Amino acid sequence: MVKTESPARIGRPRDPGKDEAVLLAARTLLAEVGYQQTTISAIARTAGVNTPAIYRRWSSREALIEEAVHGPGGHPLPRSTGDLRVDLTTWVHIFLVRAARPAARAGVPGLLADSRTAEARQRLLAIGAPVRAAFQDLLDDAVRRGEIPAGADAMFLFDLLAGTTTMQGLTRGLEGQDRFVDALARSLYVLAAHPADAVGTEAVGQ
Amino acid sequence: MVKTESPARIGRPRDPGKDEAVLLAARTLLAEVGYQQTTISAIARTAGVNTPAIYRRWSSREALIEEAVHGPGGHPLPRSTGDLRVDLTTWVHIFLVRAARPAARAGVPGLLADSRTAEARQRLLAIGAPVRAAFQDLLDDAVRRGEIPAGADAMFLFDLLAGTTTMQGLTRGLEGQDRFVDALARSLYVLAAHPADAVGTEAVGQ
Repeated sequence: MVKTESPARIGRPRDPGKDEAVLLAARTLLAEVGYQQTTISAIARTAGVNTPAIYRRWSSREALIEEAVHGPGGHPLPRSTGDLRVDLTTWVHIFLVRAARPAARAGVPGLLADSRTAEARQRLLAIGAPVRAAFQDLLDDAVRRGEIPAGADAMFLFDLLAGTTTMQGLTRGLEGQDRFVDALARSLYVLAAHPADAVGTEAVGQ
Repeated sequence: MVKTESPARIGRPRDPGKDEAVLLAARTLLAEVGYQQTTISAIARTAGVNTPAIYRRWSSREALIEEAVHGPGGHPLPRSTGDLRVDLTTWVHIFLVRAARPAARAGVPGLLADSRTAEARQRLLAIGAPVRAAFQDLLDDAVRRGEIPAGADAMFLFDLLAGTTTMQGLTRGLEGQDRFVDALARSLYVLAAHPADAVGTEAVGQ
């Protein structure tokens, strides 16, 4: 995550430590004062940087809050264990914990309300791209190992994972999390194991 | 939906026609001026009723907006056709269309931000209860017909349906809807046909 930069250039044009401080300040403010009051100037004050420094790094308040809410934020994705059921359980758990964080519960509804422009969609896709790619790899590896057949729609399964955990985290937080994580991880596994091509050729439910 | 009430008592304590006018006014305002500006007084003005009349019927602005956004609003649920795949496709389509309505895209994020209290959760559960019960019936009927085995977790599948369509409607609207509806309806069917009890006893993915 941390860019290599010579100490002499710190602060201009980019300082990873300062970036992290700004993102942390945004998360703290979201949790403490809510979306509306998490303004650029409040974030700058909390992080101890000036406003122009923030605008050099982020094009808008929404872009900054998106990264604060949807960026990794201390919950990195794990390496594959070689067992897709185990890996899916870990992914669902991480997604739920992130969606249930106070910063996400305050920030995601605000972003959903404010970020329906094409530009905002592009930003969100860019933030999500590495995670989507990692999810695709997870399923591809399971196909290579012979754990699931080829043909699963990984990007649809990713939307199912992201959408369901986001709504669960926003509305229920971590309440009933064990049952939820098991049910969703199992569902993703069953769907990965039964790609669309196979339906109709198998006697489901008989 | 319409309560039987003698014409002489219209307006006190309840007038279904007036209720509908208030809900329609709330939806119109959400779509036109957004969540923040959809106030009780703006709704009253648009609907041509007075504010106390609204408070006699709804306990708060949030309760009213919730009913405007999550109530049926012209998209009633259909009767079962006797074919679960067909019925699930219809349900997913209706849920997506409702989540993509301008009133929902403006109102749902605001409600998610404002309605995280236990009281708000209770209200939402009460609004959703008949729809959840109808979904449970849909699956129970399919079990009775022998279309799927018993044991599906209907309430978890309902959360999957509601969460995924809500996020899809909010972020993408009706863009790519045919592919999305097919993929989600198929997923719900596969999951209904492979309840948890059966996993492990069948050779998934072999």
